[in-house]
Amino acid sequence: MHIGFIGLGNMGAPMARNLLAAGYELSVFDLSRTAVEDLVASGAKAVPSIGQLASSDVELVITMLPAAVHVRQVYLGDDGLLSKVAPGVRLIDSSTIDPMTAREVAAAAVSQGNPMLDAPVSGGTGGAEAATLTFMVGGATTDYDAALSVLQAMGRNIVHCGPAGNGQAAKVANNMLLAISMIGAAEAMSLGVSLGMDPKVLAGIINTSSGRCWSTDTYNPYPRVIDTAPAARGYSGGFGTDLMLKDLGLATEAARQHKQPVMLGALAQQLYQTFSNQGHGSLDFSAIIKMYSGEDQ
Amino acid sequence: MHIGFIGLGNMGAPMARNLLAAGYELSVFDLSRTAVEDLVASGAKAVPSIGQLASSDVELVITMLPAAVHVRQVYLGDDGLLSKVAPGVRLIDSSTIDPMTAREVAAAAVSQGNPMLDAPVSGGTGGAEAATLTFMVGGATTDYDAALSVLQAMGRNIVHCGPAGNGQAAKVANNMLLAISMIGAAEAMSLGVSLGMDPKVLAGIINTSSGRCWSTDTYNPYPRVIDTAPAARGYSGGFGTDLMLKDLGLATEAARQHKQPVMLGALAQQLYQTFSNQGHGSLDFSAIIKMYSGEDQ
Repeated sequence: MHIGFIGLGNMGAPMARNLLAAGYELSVFDLSRTAVEDLVASGAKAVPSIGQLASSDVELVITMLPAAVHVRQVYLGDDGLLSKVAPGVRLIDSSTIDPMTAREVAAAAVSQGNPMLDAPVSGGTGGAEAATLTFMVGGATTDYDAALSVLQAMGRNIVHCGPAGNGQAAKVANNMLLAISMIGAAEAMSLGVSLGMDPKVLAGIINTSSGRCWSTDTYNPYPRVIDTAPAARGYSGGFGTDLMLKDLGLATEAARQHKQPVMLGALAQQLYQTFSNQGHGSLDFSAIIKMYSGEDQ
Repeated sequence: MHIGFIGLGNMGAPMARNLLAAGYELSVFDLSRTAVEDLVASGAKAVPSIGQLASSDVELVITMLPAAVHVRQVYLGDDGLLSKVAPGVRLIDSSTIDPMTAREVAAAAVSQGNPMLDAPVSGGTGGAEAATLTFMVGGATTDYDAALSVLQAMGRNIVHCGPAGNGQAAKVANNMLLAISMIGAAEAMSLGVSLGMDPKVLAGIINTSSGRCWSTDTYNPYPRVIDTAPAARGYSGGFGTDLMLKDLGLATEAARQHKQPVMLGALAQQLYQTFSNQGHGSLDFSAIIKMYSGEDQ
């Protein structure tokens, strides 16, 4: 199968490389010449514009873009995908954007005969490189079934979340809860230690009690509690604070549009904004514990 | 062994009954005549005052009281335990109170030769009846070892958390995180559903992703997601909103005294206070989702 891939950033490049490794023919486009050249060196074909990629003989186009504004431009712009692509060509957007934009773009695609899925991922650059990403997929069941083998070349856990936009809905809901429980874990660990608890003993108690969560048992933010967590390596790698902040922006904006109160979600967004403004945007998001226990812990 | 037991409420009565079932000789005291008569019918001996209980031949006294003010009164009052009890008699307070009061009372007890443990529980009245409580124990290791078999007659999971007060510290830290993650679960489930997700599909995705927590995978607040959760029976039974509110008061007050910020913990306290003031104090604490999804969900 001939696949087009648009957006060769930190996530898109390793995802595209895994498609090449799985034997797919790949045409790629990115604004960065270096990013394109790297993929060409891995066996992909460079295409000079989105319009030319869309009007080639691709059967499927995958996009991995920074934000909704880029998704609108790439799909709905003057020389965009939908203006050039032949009916029947399948479209998958793996960008993380708001569910409303995802539904609007999918409706435009489907109305002109192009099946479309939203398929945002979790698992970070490590998951993208190892082809162990989780894909949260929104769209028709038949389109999900048709895309499954391609997604499995880039990920391990492929979940159908319902109709168009629901992949994005699942991702913003999960990541908002993740942000809340990470800050909750940071507060509970910091409080317990300030009350005299040993952090490892406290984590052990929480992890066998009702406070148990992924942020305490797998990714504990307190230093020296879990050897494999970013807290054990100065909060480098992992899932960046600014990426979590972006997802919290999507969650709180979607909540606002749907008149859905999210009191803790909104405060989590404010805390991550504050932490980013203090200069910590590139640290793993579990570093938020620095707001509670001081810099020198 | 002859044990004294003070405080025969919803928790204390079944705990005392389990001690009788395990073959211990039991002397009991409570301000409620009915509560005492119920235990006497089960085989306990009634004692007319705390002072008389303390000066009998008990080897161990267990207290299970509503709040710190009662613990101070029972232990440090004029006719209280410490004024009458013989040196060497062991003391266990299973009330949930602030760590500072627990340490103050334990220091007074130890200084006059009475080993003391703080041993608050989790597991609710169901756990008290079934003898499956978790005990979080603070105090000296030798005293913990000496108390273990008695605590095992009332609970299943007995955890030594460190020196005096650390049982209380572990409980407030865990329960503050529990409150935060329950509200986070309520917000994430409500947001996802308002964005078009099926609640069971959303819970399934969260429970295999980084948002996973006890409040989503065991005690999900959304109706009809988990058959065994209070959400499946109109939020009856379980862990009451007013009990969670009490624990959040202890957590935020302990944080204040230790100059430890707990931004989400403080907001969780405000949300539970609001929900209780709206008349929902006796509902299970997962009913907080009513603040997000409306009364009629």
